[in-house]
Amino acid sequence: MELMKRTKIVDALKKTDFGEDICIKGWVRTRRGNKNVSFIELNDGSSVHNIQIVADNNKLGIEFLKPITTGACIGVTGKLTQSLGKGQSVEIQAEDIVIYGTADPETYPLQKKEHTMEFLREIAHLRPRTNTFGAVFRIRHHMAMAIHTFFHERGFYYFHTPIITGSDCEGAGQLFQVTTLNLSDLPKAENGCIDYSNDFFGKQTGLTVSGQLEGELGALALGAIYTFGPTFRAENSNTPRHLSEFWMIEPEVAFNELEDNMQLAEDFVKYCVRWALDNCKDDLEFLNNRYDAELIDRLKFVVENDFVRLTYTEGIKILEDAMAKGQKFEFPVGWGIDLQSEHERYLVEKHFKKPVILTDYPKDIKAFYMKLNDDGKTVRAMDVLFPKIGEIIGGSQREDNYEKLKARAKEMEVPDK
Amino acid sequence: MELMKRTKIVDALKKTDFGEDICIKGWVRTRRGNKNVSFIELNDGSSVHNIQIVADNNKLGIEFLKPITTGACIGVTGKLTQSLGKGQSVEIQAEDIVIYGTADPETYPLQKKEHTMEFLREIAHLRPRTNTFGAVFRIRHHMAMAIHTFFHERGFYYFHTPIITGSDCEGAGQLFQVTTLNLSDLPKAENGCIDYSNDFFGKQTGLTVSGQLEGELGALALGAIYTFGPTFRAENSNTPRHLSEFWMIEPEVAFNELEDNMQLAEDFVKYCVRWALDNCKDDLEFLNNRYDAELIDRLKFVVENDFVRLTYTEGIKILEDAMAKGQKFEFPVGWGIDLQSEHERYLVEKHFKKPVILTDYPKDIKAFYMKLNDDGKTVRAMDVLFPKIGEIIGGSQREDNYEKLKARAKEMEVPDK
Repeated sequence: MELMKRTKIVDALKKTDFGEDICIKGWVRTRRGNKNVSFIELNDGSSVHNIQIVADNNKLGIEFLKPITTGACIGVTGKLTQSLGKGQSVEIQAEDIVIYGTADPETYPLQKKEHTMEFLREIAHLRPRTNTFGAVFRIRHHMAMAIHTFFHERGFYYFHTPIITGSDCEGAGQLFQVTTLNLSDLPKAENGCIDYSNDFFGKQTGLTVSGQLEGELGALALGAIYTFGPTFRAENSNTPRHLSEFWMIEPEVAFNELEDNMQLAEDFVKYCVRWALDNCKDDLEFLNNRYDAELIDRLKFVVENDFVRLTYTEGIKILEDAMAKGQKFEFPVGWGIDLQSEHERYLVEKHFKKPVILTDYPKDIKAFYMKLNDDGKTVRAMDVLFPKIGEIIGGSQREDNYEKLKARAKEMEVPDK
Repeated sequence: MELMKRTKIVDALKKTDFGEDICIKGWVRTRRGNKNVSFIELNDGSSVHNIQIVADNNKLGIEFLKPITTGACIGVTGKLTQSLGKGQSVEIQAEDIVIYGTADPETYPLQKKEHTMEFLREIAHLRPRTNTFGAVFRIRHHMAMAIHTFFHERGFYYFHTPIITGSDCEGAGQLFQVTTLNLSDLPKAENGCIDYSNDFFGKQTGLTVSGQLEGELGALALGAIYTFGPTFRAENSNTPRHLSEFWMIEPEVAFNELEDNMQLAEDFVKYCVRWALDNCKDDLEFLNNRYDAELIDRLKFVVENDFVRLTYTEGIKILEDAMAKGQKFEFPVGWGIDLQSEHERYLVEKHFKKPVILTDYPKDIKAFYMKLNDDGKTVRAMDVLFPKIGEIIGGSQREDNYEKLKARAKEMEVPDK
């Protein structure tokens, strides 16, 4: 059967032209009903919400409807009608149904119940069909659009930096090696080392840990660039904050000073959060209800408040004062330490109750290329600290004095080549 | 000296508030002049066009101005004035100049002359500062924005598929292997093979050649997705059409038939080309003048014409008829061949003089998962063929009959796992 042009469920749910014919296609979430009528909850990924299909068992045939179980893929044409049931505004009175694919109820693993993340990990090919993964993927898409639109509106150019690289990056952890050599028969040089001259690029290469170096070159030509691409860490740490493969955003701007970078970071975060609040309402509400009842309030709070800006030195003083008043931390506090999540979150969640931008960190815990302050001890670094997360953005004004840069590289034992 | 807020050159060139103060920053393209006045051409990457700075040698000091040579980085404040010189509408009468960095004229490799691509390859860190690379990078940024906006407006979700993967892809060529094993001391299993159980992912992995498989799973959950990310080919072929690392777009849509895919492809290409014509005029004019005098006409032609749609079988017949009339091809023509660029370009440039979408290719030269036509010989594949390029998009309607899919996989010797 040829069906009429399909309407996405996200659009169908907003329609009010009741009595008109409509065609939708999607995957069955549940079917329930009685002897006379079947109610099919259909989802097509365009929304976290399903649309309800009402099917007359006698008209369509009880045997025909039988294989329409959870996970089946169907197309439906019928009349859009105002729903009398609670929790939905429209439903479809099915005229015709086409079954594109069935899902055996005995073996199809996604059923109408909460599945654990561990279980979903085992069925990675199906988990995008769950409400949670659907919501996350839709929000992720919107965040990508927000990121590109933000930078585009400000005259930044999207810059694709190399994924396979011959350069390492400061202390970013172990590299994934990339090779086309036959590992079962590696060529050796006379000194016994592996001879990379016949590897694809004629030398040892790995997956990038940062596009910063190429991004800086781009900024010194195009004025302002940003990267947004996959980045890799071969660290075997299993925490919610470590991934071996993830997408990272790295803006680089010629002529920017630290204050400009702070403003860019604050504007950027607020722009993305506002985009989510404006465009991902249903998915955020789902996540708010299911996982974190303060999620939406926290996002609104970020958008509505100026970020607090203070120096690392002032931040340490606040933490020390808190300890003097009885606050306990797992890790020690003192000028020179690398702040832990618990310290960052204390400043954000307990002390200021706002996002915080901490600046002017001790030079010894930051990268060699950050601009040295006149005190000779601190650098023009900034970290944006966020409720529930801690550091969400790190950045700095770059050292623009070549002699100082060389001296700092030497001090921190950065190799010349 | 503190400078006032910087204006980008692309915006400064459009200004008409002559007599007002303005601050710009950028890199010197050339400086020329006479005893009394210096003319500095400044570029900041926001446009292929420079802005002219007019500096009074006596006011600013001839010794001070001396290091402002090609490649130097400066900031200028001054009055915006209407230019009397040809080729520019505005210029800046410099009040103050700050020199951020100098470039030794004896050694700075980018001088005001045409450099060969081979030479620029040797100075990859500086070539983004040339007009050609600047234009290409700006257009590339705009094409990325066009791609994201096109799909976003149509309800597609941007889907990040894995870069490191355990799966191979149909005949896409040799993989780059990714490993954290110590190549100088590879663990061996009892049978003498390399033991990957201690590699990062516990098995052999490589860089993706396509996100299609994951993209299809995404489409079967979210309805319509697209990927846009780096992709890899470890083929040692040095042609303008082969790269070891490149960014590829892969839309996947549930429920689409071949006609829908053709329309999507045509709409997509036209949308991107129109975006370029609307937003990249200066850069396209530069490339048109420098490299390809028909570039802009060809782009307009693509936007203004419907793409011709015909079957592979019809296309072969046209090529055979042309040969009968004396047209020569390097490669043989006959039903069943894989079309070469010369064949594709004949159809597009000589016969139809329009972009062409060729459909229904012989099953033996296409992938196993493409939907088999009722003739049992051809599949619902499509290639979009473009002037000067040949194939620019390839796609297909996927086989949705599980038994047929399994049979085709077996015929084409696709392994079960």
